[in-house]
Amino acid sequence: MRQTTDPLARLRAAADDRRAAGLRRALRPRTPDDDGLLDLASNDYLGLARDGRLAEAAVAATRLWGTGSTGSRLVTGSTELHARLEEALCAFAGAEGALVFSSGYLANLAAVAALGSGGLVVSDAGNHASIVDACRLSRSRVVVTPHGDASAVEKALAGRSEEHAVVVTDAVFSVDGDLAPLARLHEAAVRHGALLVVDEAHALGVVGPGGRGAVYAAGLAGERTVVRTVTLSKALGSQGGAVLGAREVVETLVDTGRPFIFDTGLAPGSVAAALAAVDILLHQPELPGRVRTRAGELAALARELGLETREPAGAVVPVVLGRPETALRAAAICAEHGVRAGCFRPPSVPVGRSCLRLTARANLSSDDLAVTRSALTAVAEMKVGM
Amino acid sequence: MRQTTDPLARLRAAADDRRAAGLRRALRPRTPDDDGLLDLASNDYLGLARDGRLAEAAVAATRLWGTGSTGSRLVTGSTELHARLEEALCAFAGAEGALVFSSGYLANLAAVAALGSGGLVVSDAGNHASIVDACRLSRSRVVVTPHGDASAVEKALAGRSEEHAVVVTDAVFSVDGDLAPLARLHEAAVRHGALLVVDEAHALGVVGPGGRGAVYAAGLAGERTVVRTVTLSKALGSQGGAVLGAREVVETLVDTGRPFIFDTGLAPGSVAAALAAVDILLHQPELPGRVRTRAGELAALARELGLETREPAGAVVPVVLGRPETALRAAAICAEHGVRAGCFRPPSVPVGRSCLRLTARANLSSDDLAVTRSALTAVAEMKVGM
Repeated sequence: MRQTTDPLARLRAAADDRRAAGLRRALRPRTPDDDGLLDLASNDYLGLARDGRLAEAAVAATRLWGTGSTGSRLVTGSTELHARLEEALCAFAGAEGALVFSSGYLANLAAVAALGSGGLVVSDAGNHASIVDACRLSRSRVVVTPHGDASAVEKALAGRSEEHAVVVTDAVFSVDGDLAPLARLHEAAVRHGALLVVDEAHALGVVGPGGRGAVYAAGLAGERTVVRTVTLSKALGSQGGAVLGAREVVETLVDTGRPFIFDTGLAPGSVAAALAAVDILLHQPELPGRVRTRAGELAALARELGLETREPAGAVVPVVLGRPETALRAAAICAEHGVRAGCFRPPSVPVGRSCLRLTARANLSSDDLAVTRSALTAVAEMKVGM
Repeated sequence: MRQTTDPLARLRAAADDRRAAGLRRALRPRTPDDDGLLDLASNDYLGLARDGRLAEAAVAATRLWGTGSTGSRLVTGSTELHARLEEALCAFAGAEGALVFSSGYLANLAAVAALGSGGLVVSDAGNHASIVDACRLSRSRVVVTPHGDASAVEKALAGRSEEHAVVVTDAVFSVDGDLAPLARLHEAAVRHGALLVVDEAHALGVVGPGGRGAVYAAGLAGERTVVRTVTLSKALGSQGGAVLGAREVVETLVDTGRPFIFDTGLAPGSVAAALAAVDILLHQPELPGRVRTRAGELAALARELGLETREPAGAVVPVVLGRPETALRAAAICAEHGVRAGCFRPPSVPVGRSCLRLTARANLSSDDLAVTRSALTAVAEMKVGM
């Protein structure tokens, strides 16, 4: 007979196993002065999260509309402000319709699950956790294709028996920082009657003309069978996410997208901040180019020091170190040198690919780059000494 | 061979089917003056979403910390403010640990999926969509038990072969408004070595002494095998959610809760607003009782008019009407009489149980109740005339 044990003892034992494997995590709350560390870890690519224009837009909206949206977008959680943000996102990125969510994670869950339901979903092996979870929620047959392999996608679509199919990919991959082969994925999707869902989380505000994203840059913004998901919490410096797509896609999500229907709408202050960020991008179209330049400089520096990295498509620059303990040690060395770097271990990255994740910002100075050089030099010395 | 069709044509056909079934939905953005309608639809149970104290707390936090948290809670998305809110929630609700999420939906996904993974999850048939999705994500065997049936839960736990199990239930059900049999569920969970996860979304701030929730009211706040999920976006007037539980539960979610690890942290302004709301509850412990009194009056009114309702445990009062078209017509009648009522149709409720969902607020006046009487009288007349 099954033995009844203390359920918390099971959790403690699992935590011990994670500790032994170097996979425990701890929250380290930031202080208002941010410990004086140079931020190369956040997704605040344009430095807008602490921009006074976003803050004052959020302040005005909070005072006018309140601190919460008070309900589902379908009940009381939609305000005129949400509608204005949806219009602004459409105009900026060249989309027919948009729906704002309280989180990019939920936008992915809703888009893939609602559009893929009962069909085939073809998903890149490097896709973000929210897409992986979306595939699981979709109740579809899921085929995971090798990272960046458009031929494998084509093969999966061609060999299917399901009537409908969805291809889903990150535009810029969240840790590796590389770009998906969007043009070839789109060709394959069109040829086989599939929708293409592209997560622009790390591309919007960074990639493409004026930061309009990778789909726009690939000339696919006007394609009605291309669906985009975006976050408002990275380059746009706020919180939340959105789905951009054809009228039919938006209608499908409004009627059947569970994480849209059953979640509270985004808070008005966050809506207003994202709206202000889109306006800034319209008026300062040079900002995204600056991030990409800085990212290229970070990658060149890592390469010069003999560290494993790759050419960044956007703001994300990985420094691959292998074992979790090595990545933790490297992050600690960076902190000692005044740099906050992201430290990514399984399940955030595949086993054996633990890494530092450096992110560029539009407002990094040459002093900042000098500090980064000294930090990465120490990381490279540690790696050689192992 | 499979025919390749236009994927948007498939979506249009499905939308036509939903239209024919009375299941199309439309977003109706609120205006700043809220159309002058009496709000009986939102989840702003304490009227705090437009409270100046919450707004000014959010304003100060936005100016100090910025408009976004800039990353995952594990990278740069945790601030001292997040830690303070977690402490305040623990102190208020009598919990050992807490973790704040950007959405209550994601809190449920993380808690059930991480704690249930690979075991048995026993879920009430009336549970919220976010719990249903969490069950799907958990990769566990899922047993759905009849609504409110603690014996069925006991039977599912006793008959399992899996080593570990989780029982999950709403505290106050989101549309029916009734209370789960928490004491009996807890007894069953303890007897069979299972964790009990209780979603207090519609209970926190409404049910129990000072609004401390249904688990607290049942004397279970100190039980280490009871896990609570809460929303910050309903009675607390802000946005986001949290998981409250033992140290082992919090550690498990920090290390393995995918929607915790891979989502951007809650925006500082929303954190501050929720913190202000907890403070208001501490200083105005009479507010939750007022909501419950008003809810009881709404239910009594519906019953008096011959409408199908049920005794509310919290703020939620359903008026069951049956077919989707009837519920839509009733909502329109309410609006003509100056009342905004929630209109719930499948998939939000089971087929045949389309309803109005009325929600009480602490600050409803006797004038408001008079307006409601005239609206519900007209609904009852429409129902009789059918």
